[in-house]
Amino acid sequence: MEHPTVIRPGEHAVWQADKMGKATLFSSPRVLVGLNAFEPGQEHALHAHAGMDKVYHVLEGEGLFLLEGRELPMQAGELLVAPDGVPHGVRNTGPGRLLALAVLAPAPGR
Amino acid sequence: MEHPTVIRPGEHAVWQADKMGKATLFSSPRVLVGLNAFEPGQEHALHAHAGMDKVYHVLEGEGLFLLEGRELPMQAGELLVAPDGVPHGVRNTGPGRLLALAVLAPAPGR
Repeated sequence: MEHPTVIRPGEHAVWQADKMGKATLFSSPRVLVGLNAFEPGQEHALHAHAGMDKVYHVLEGEGLFLLEGRELPMQAGELLVAPDGVPHGVRNTGPGRLLALAVLAPAPGR
Repeated sequence: MEHPTVIRPGEHAVWQADKMGKATLFSSPRVLVGLNAFEPGQEHALHAHAGMDKVYHVLEGEGLFLLEGRELPMQAGELLVAPDGVPHGVRNTGPGRLLALAVLAPAPGR
């Protein structure tokens, strides 16, 4: 994808029957803008990123933000920031698909 | 605001009669997660950030993404990335309020 361009995130989602699907909308050394797509029941287990902040923005569906010792209900339109080192995850507990924008700064693995 | 917590972005928007309103949802050296709120007719003129990538995500309303030599219609749910150094702006050409999430990585002015 060439940037800047108008992006409709839902058109780029990758759905997988066996596990959460991932797609990348933009990446640079500074930031990764991705999509996490969860079929009903799928989850991204609690994990942390050293030296990175993570922003989730729920685009479609509902579920739970997973944190250490807490599970927070989430729905479309809501946002959560997991600062550097804070373990976080997502579980689709809703009846339909759950799509979340996931922004990592800086980008991992470079 | 303590993080991580569930954020409903619209509840944090700052609206100003005289110019675009800004609010900060999260900031660290790595990333600034903010809101740009435009009353009808308001705009954020073309500008660029050296060494930073900017992600806009339209939460409410409609308008134009401003780029050098181009104006791209935008509406709620759409996203645009202005990579490092690419001049960009926003104009509310719609009949109602326009609210955009604006993510800058790394954060400016630190």
